[in-house]
Amino acid sequence: MFVADLETPAVVVDLDVMERNVSRMAEYCRSRNLRLRPHTKSHKIPELAKRQLAHGAQGITVAKIGEAEVMLDAGITDILIAYPIIGTGKTEKLADLATRANITVSLDSVAVAQAIAAEAKRREVRVGILVELDVGFHRCGVTTDEEVLTIARAVADLPGLEFKGLMFFPGHLQVTENERAELRVSVNEFLSRSLAKLEDAGLPVEIVSGGSTPTAREGHLFTGVNEIRPGMYIFNDRNMLSVGVARLEDCALSVITTVVSTSVPGRAIVDAGSKTLSSDTHQVPEGRGFGMIKTDPDAEVERLSEEHGNLNIARSTREYRVGERLEIIPNHVCSTVNMHNRIYGVSGGRVEAVWEVAGRGKVQ
Amino acid sequence: MFVADLETPAVVVDLDVMERNVSRMAEYCRSRNLRLRPHTKSHKIPELAKRQLAHGAQGITVAKIGEAEVMLDAGITDILIAYPIIGTGKTEKLADLATRANITVSLDSVAVAQAIAAEAKRREVRVGILVELDVGFHRCGVTTDEEVLTIARAVADLPGLEFKGLMFFPGHLQVTENERAELRVSVNEFLSRSLAKLEDAGLPVEIVSGGSTPTAREGHLFTGVNEIRPGMYIFNDRNMLSVGVARLEDCALSVITTVVSTSVPGRAIVDAGSKTLSSDTHQVPEGRGFGMIKTDPDAEVERLSEEHGNLNIARSTREYRVGERLEIIPNHVCSTVNMHNRIYGVSGGRVEAVWEVAGRGKVQ
Repeated sequence: MFVADLETPAVVVDLDVMERNVSRMAEYCRSRNLRLRPHTKSHKIPELAKRQLAHGAQGITVAKIGEAEVMLDAGITDILIAYPIIGTGKTEKLADLATRANITVSLDSVAVAQAIAAEAKRREVRVGILVELDVGFHRCGVTTDEEVLTIARAVADLPGLEFKGLMFFPGHLQVTENERAELRVSVNEFLSRSLAKLEDAGLPVEIVSGGSTPTAREGHLFTGVNEIRPGMYIFNDRNMLSVGVARLEDCALSVITTVVSTSVPGRAIVDAGSKTLSSDTHQVPEGRGFGMIKTDPDAEVERLSEEHGNLNIARSTREYRVGERLEIIPNHVCSTVNMHNRIYGVSGGRVEAVWEVAGRGKVQ
Repeated sequence: MFVADLETPAVVVDLDVMERNVSRMAEYCRSRNLRLRPHTKSHKIPELAKRQLAHGAQGITVAKIGEAEVMLDAGITDILIAYPIIGTGKTEKLADLATRANITVSLDSVAVAQAIAAEAKRREVRVGILVELDVGFHRCGVTTDEEVLTIARAVADLPGLEFKGLMFFPGHLQVTENERAELRVSVNEFLSRSLAKLEDAGLPVEIVSGGSTPTAREGHLFTGVNEIRPGMYIFNDRNMLSVGVARLEDCALSVITTVVSTSVPGRAIVDAGSKTLSSDTHQVPEGRGFGMIKTDPDAEVERLSEEHGNLNIARSTREYRVGERLEIIPNHVCSTVNMHNRIYGVSGGRVEAVWEVAGRGKVQ
C-alpha cells in the first residue's frame, strides 16, 4: 500500500527519520554514560518501545498502569510508572505487574507509599520507588530537601518497597537554550541539597532520573542525573521545532489531510480538526495555531473545530483546491497519536507498518 | 456496581438529567414544529442516539462516514453526514451506506457534488444533498446567494443526487443571548435571499437545517429553518453554562477524578489531564481553565498535562487530600467523550449502564 492510498486524516511516521531520532538519543546517552528510559506515552505502541530498547534504552517509562500492562504483555519487563498510583484497584494491579516485571513508581507523599506498600506486602512483591522533586514546574513533587528525606526514609522503612532514588520533570525548561541554562542553576542546587541529605542519612541513591525531550541532551549537566526519560524525541513536533531542539528534517510524524472546502475567501478547510490533531496549543511565547503545513509555512492552521482544520491562507501565495492533500506537523505529537487507534510507518511513499496504538484509552 | 467503585478517571452521565435534557429539546421542537436531528458527535454512542430518537428526533447527524456506519449498524436509518465527503474510498463507502439507509450529505462545492454523483450513479443509489451556507463562522459554506443557486442547480442536474435544501452552522453565535439576536439579523438576510433565489429558479427546498446547542431554542427565529442539529444539549458542559443555555443542574456529564498529589503549595493534582478532559479551552471572552470542580468553584483547573490536572487552590477555602475524589464538569463534552473508549450511565450513585463510545477513533 502507498501513502497516497491511505484515507485521510492519517498519522504517518517516516521510518528512517524515526530510526535516526531513536539512534541519536541512544548515542548521546552512551556518550555521557546516562541510562535512557524513553517515555512511551508519546506513542503507546509496543513495537516502537522495542525499537527504542533495541537501540540501547535500558527500560521504558509509562504514565499509567494500563500502559504498563500493554508493554509488559509485549515482553517489556523493566518499567517505570512515572505517576503516583493511588486507589485500591490500581495498587492491586500494580502488585500484579510487580509479580511479572521490574516495576518502579514515582511518588511524592507518604500516603501513596503506604498504600502501595500494604498491597506489595500482601502479595509478597517488591516495588521500586523514586521520590519525585518539584524543580519548578509546580505539578507533582516535593519542594524541599527535608521532605525528600522524610519520604525516602518512610519508603526505606516500609515493607514491599525499595527506595531507588529521585525523579524530576523539568517541564518548565521547555524554552530556549539560554533560559534552560539559567533555570538549571536552581534545579541543580535542589538536587545537590537533596542528595547530600540522603547521603548523610545513609540512604543509597541508585537512580536520579531527569530529562524530557527539550532538556534531554543537557542531561549530563544536571547534578547527579544518571537516567533520562525523553518521550517526544522519537517523532518530534512543532513545539520541538520552535524551541530549537529539532529541525524540520527531524520531524518523523505528520498528519496527512485533505482539503474539503475552499468556499470562504481566505480560508481552506481540511479534514483534520481537534479530534485528529488535538487542541494542544503552540507552547512558545505568543505561540499561535495548531500545526505547521509542511509545504506552505505562510498558511496558518488558525482554528480547529472537532473535524475541521480551519486554515488562514490570506498570506499564502499558492492556490488551494478541494480534494488535494496536505501534510501537517502537529504542535504536540503525544496528544495527536493519542487521538488515533492506529498510525502508519512509511518509507519512500510506501506504507511499511501499521501500528495499533495499543496503550491508548486506558482508564488506569 | 457503584460510582464509588469505578476506577478514575471515569466519565459518568447522570441518566435522569440526560433524559430530561433530551426530552426538553424534543418538546421545544414539537412546540415550534421543527424537526430535530441531534448531532451525535457529542456522544458517538448508538444507545444514546436511540434515546434521542425515542423522544421524537426524526433522524441523526454525524460528522464522519465511520460514525454513520456505527449508527446504521445499530439500526438507525436516517442520517445526515454534515461534512463534505471527498476521496475515492469515502465516496465508495458513502454509496454503500446509501444502499442501506436514507443518507444526506452537506457540501459547498460542485467538485464534491460531482464526485459523490459519479459513485452514486455507478451504484444506482440516491444521496440527499444540503448546500452549506457560511453564515459568519467562516469555516465551510458558500458566502453568496449566487453560489447557493449555482451549487443547488448543479446538484439538481447531477444523477444520483437529490437536492434537499440548505444547511448552516451558526458557530459564531456561541455567545450571549443579546449578541446572538444581533448576529441573527444578517444570518436571516442571507437565508431569505438564498431561499428567494431558489424559489425563482424553481428548485424546491425541503429542508433548512440550522441550530447548534447555543442557538437551539432560537431555532424558530431563523428564516425558513425547519430542522435543528444540536449536539451538546444531551449532556451540557462548562461552555454551555457560561453562555447561559444550561444551568448547573442541567449538566449530565462529569469526570470523576482522584487527587494524586498535594506536595506543591497552593496546588492539588488530579488524575484527569488533557488525555482525559481534552485541552479544549473555555470558549468565552477571557475564559480560563479546563473545567469546573463541582464542589469547589473557588479552585481553578488551571493547567493540564497529559495525565495531570493541575488545580490552583490558592483561593480555595477547603483542604485537599491525596486519594479523595472530585467531580469535574469539562469545558467541552464532545471532546471529553471522544477521549474515552467507554463511559458510564449512573443514577443515585449506581452504575446502571456501560456504553462503548462505538463511533470514536474512526478515520473516515
